[in-house]
Amino acid sequence: MPEYPQPITTVDVALFTIRDGRLHLALIRRENEPFAGVLALPGGFVHTEGDLGTADTAMRVLRAKARTEVPYLEQLYTFSGPHRDPRGWSISVAYYALVPSEALQSGGEGGLTLAPVDALPKLPFDHGEIVAKALERLRDKASYSSLPAFLMPPVFSLSQLQEVYEKVMGAKLERSHFRRAVESTGFAVPIPNLTVNSKGRPAQAYRLGTHVLHEMAQSLLRRDKQA
Amino acid sequence: MPEYPQPITTVDVALFTIRDGRLHLALIRRENEPFAGVLALPGGFVHTEGDLGTADTAMRVLRAKARTEVPYLEQLYTFSGPHRDPRGWSISVAYYALVPSEALQSGGEGGLTLAPVDALPKLPFDHGEIVAKALERLRDKASYSSLPAFLMPPVFSLSQLQEVYEKVMGAKLERSHFRRAVESTGFAVPIPNLTVNSKGRPAQAYRLGTHVLHEMAQSLLRRDKQA
Repeated sequence: MPEYPQPITTVDVALFTIRDGRLHLALIRRENEPFAGVLALPGGFVHTEGDLGTADTAMRVLRAKARTEVPYLEQLYTFSGPHRDPRGWSISVAYYALVPSEALQSGGEGGLTLAPVDALPKLPFDHGEIVAKALERLRDKASYSSLPAFLMPPVFSLSQLQEVYEKVMGAKLERSHFRRAVESTGFAVPIPNLTVNSKGRPAQAYRLGTHVLHEMAQSLLRRDKQA
Repeated sequence: MPEYPQPITTVDVALFTIRDGRLHLALIRRENEPFAGVLALPGGFVHTEGDLGTADTAMRVLRAKARTEVPYLEQLYTFSGPHRDPRGWSISVAYYALVPSEALQSGGEGGLTLAPVDALPKLPFDHGEIVAKALERLRDKASYSSLPAFLMPPVFSLSQLQEVYEKVMGAKLERSHFRRAVESTGFAVPIPNLTVNSKGRPAQAYRLGTHVLHEMAQSLLRRDKQA
């Protein structure tokens, strides 16, 4: 066994969703010191009695504090050092997660606060640095993957899909190019005879393509395997 | 302070080099239980009294156990769980590092053992899994970056450079295409009136291009900043 004092070990999660067409981060008001009463990333200590790994800690924390089961969870980076937590030398294994807005109940006692990522409050510890790294990773991955699929409701318009991609990537996309890419890759497919309300007007309804749903299922299996 | 028992926290490093034209991994014979006497990744406990972060732990471990200062060090992934270490629930913040062969003294009492990555011994803990992930990351990054530059001696032939890229990427490259890419990007530049011995014959000597050296310097600064 180590003859040295061991660091404090926590897991923190940057949980993203899209609400009102903007990318939001889920925050929770801390119950305990340090920083009691301050909005922070949902997180907690590793429970060595029950957790199977830090990914399992992250899922347990999100179930307990955000009352949600996230479809996408990935390890981001491990932050550490003597000064990031006033309680002492600490390690935070940070994760980022994506969830469709409908799967989140925000507000209410002990509930989540959703803050737009371009107007975040000042966060305690090094949570600001964690969020910056999570956004960088998210933007990097979104541009060559189906990652934003995890943020979509079951039925949507192409404008809504484009908006989600733009919010995640933090960049404007050219409309006709985007539509061609989506249709030629089968990323989304039209649902015959169904329209959705898109910016006050009826628009063709789409769902995610079968291969995207398959990829999402594979990703869920990976999520559950990583422990 | 946490009311739960905290995990054991270690740092492990997958340190790569090129020797005899093959990609090698640096291993060290463990002095203590568990797995005393077995070849394993260099690693150790976080010292909360002196380390500034887990990257600092990694550099201290490499200095002490591998007697080397690595030019490239990057966090790989954090491995965790109740079963990966017989001493109990543990976390390993894993790093990977690159070093030119000349900067490593191998063999001798308590020294390093260099093992070709395609003929590794069975490693203890989940070190096999750590190495597999490190190789995947290395191959992924090598194909779009100057990462292999960190493995090069100061002077080399283009064949030697191509060999290093091939070993890191685990793929054959087309010779004339590779040469054109190297020369057009200024990745390597010829040293006038100098030849090196390449496969028994004199060949034009090259050094890394100025912008590559600049990138390497930037990377060193990042390494030292990450703590």
